[in-house]
Amino acid sequence: MREVFHQSLEEVQDRLVEISELVTVAIEKATRAFGTSDVTLAEEVIEADSVIDDSATALDELAIEILARQQPVARDLRIVVAALRVSASLERMGDIAEHIAQLTRMRFPERAIPKGLKSTFTKMGELDVEVARTLTAILRDGDLALVETLRALDDRIDDLHLSVFEKVLGENWQGEAGATVDATLASRYLERFADHALSVAKKMAYLATGDWKPDTDTIAVIAAEQIAEQLAERAAE
Amino acid sequence: MREVFHQSLEEVQDRLVEISELVTVAIEKATRAFGTSDVTLAEEVIEADSVIDDSATALDELAIEILARQQPVARDLRIVVAALRVSASLERMGDIAEHIAQLTRMRFPERAIPKGLKSTFTKMGELDVEVARTLTAILRDGDLALVETLRALDDRIDDLHLSVFEKVLGENWQGEAGATVDATLASRYLERFADHALSVAKKMAYLATGDWKPDTDTIAVIAAEQIAEQLAERAAE
Repeated sequence: MREVFHQSLEEVQDRLVEISELVTVAIEKATRAFGTSDVTLAEEVIEADSVIDDSATALDELAIEILARQQPVARDLRIVVAALRVSASLERMGDIAEHIAQLTRMRFPERAIPKGLKSTFTKMGELDVEVARTLTAILRDGDLALVETLRALDDRIDDLHLSVFEKVLGENWQGEAGATVDATLASRYLERFADHALSVAKKMAYLATGDWKPDTDTIAVIAAEQIAEQLAERAAE
Repeated sequence: MREVFHQSLEEVQDRLVEISELVTVAIEKATRAFGTSDVTLAEEVIEADSVIDDSATALDELAIEILARQQPVARDLRIVVAALRVSASLERMGDIAEHIAQLTRMRFPERAIPKGLKSTFTKMGELDVEVARTLTAILRDGDLALVETLRALDDRIDDLHLSVFEKVLGENWQGEAGATVDATLASRYLERFADHALSVAKKMAYLATGDWKPDTDTIAVIAAEQIAEQLAERAAE
């Protein structure tokens, strides 16, 4: 029975990693389609979103089945509950990738990126892909030291998000209202990915500590402890 | 034991209703502050958001405790799992109310609502308050017929959201880029409340049916069945 149970928990984790990989592909394709006005690629993202949604639903069903049949307690219970929350965030990240693809399709054959913002949005897109890859690694390896990497990426994305508004509200902005609307929505979408990823990472920290809502310091401490442990392990090898 | 258990489930429900009431107050105050540039009221909303966050966290802890100690199955299990999802949506609605309050504070002493959009945003705000009240009633009474009311409110809000973009992108729009950014963000925030509320209502429908993701028709059927039942009950009285 115990062995079956641990297989189920492993399956929960495997599926979370799978969904996170699907989300990474969606973000990579959506931001590339947005940057190159590639409407075919945008359509692909829009079509593929239902796969992410269905995978998240299937994971929720698995989690509920585990709760009903195996009635986990303590840390195992927290893993299952956290998985429900993580899947919701991943699904939402997929939705946002779809929004970016829709923006690309709506403007086609015009470019969706307003003039003067191409390099900023390209950079934000690259950082978002890195965010998704880092999140996948955290879900796969449980390496909470990567939470700090995520936080650093989020800070850089926030700076770029602010720089979009500085540009749009600056004296040299020549965009019409349509370009201003697009810039505002796109920047908001591109900024949200990292927020969701950080929220997922916090749920992972909860797994490790039993704290539902650890603050920044707690996460930093856990990360520091994990790094110290890893170094100690390596030194002992 | 069974009796204790049902008390706990009732407490889960009571707390969801309480949080939903706090969210209703936040939306009412935030949209009023936004409409009247009342920075004191905006500050109140910003300050009160931590109460919503803490209440949602406390509810999550209660749900986990119930899962661990009472190991519910079948419908009871679904109620507890749904509560975890509902609390996350309510918390997010509180965050959005806070964003609207922050927008109000950021523009103060200027008006946060761009010229020409006052009546549209006022109407959206009123409908959002109605959305929150309807959601509270669904959580309190489990009356899924109200899901259709929610859907109708969501449609009206979506129409107003579109009308904001029509105005901003129309020939007569004289707002500067700052006004366009504000209109875009505010309209997006005001539109999201109803999306979250509908998502919560779908979780409630899941409670009733065991379907994690009922489509529109399923909800309509459940609502129709409930209405028929109520009418039959009244006729029998």
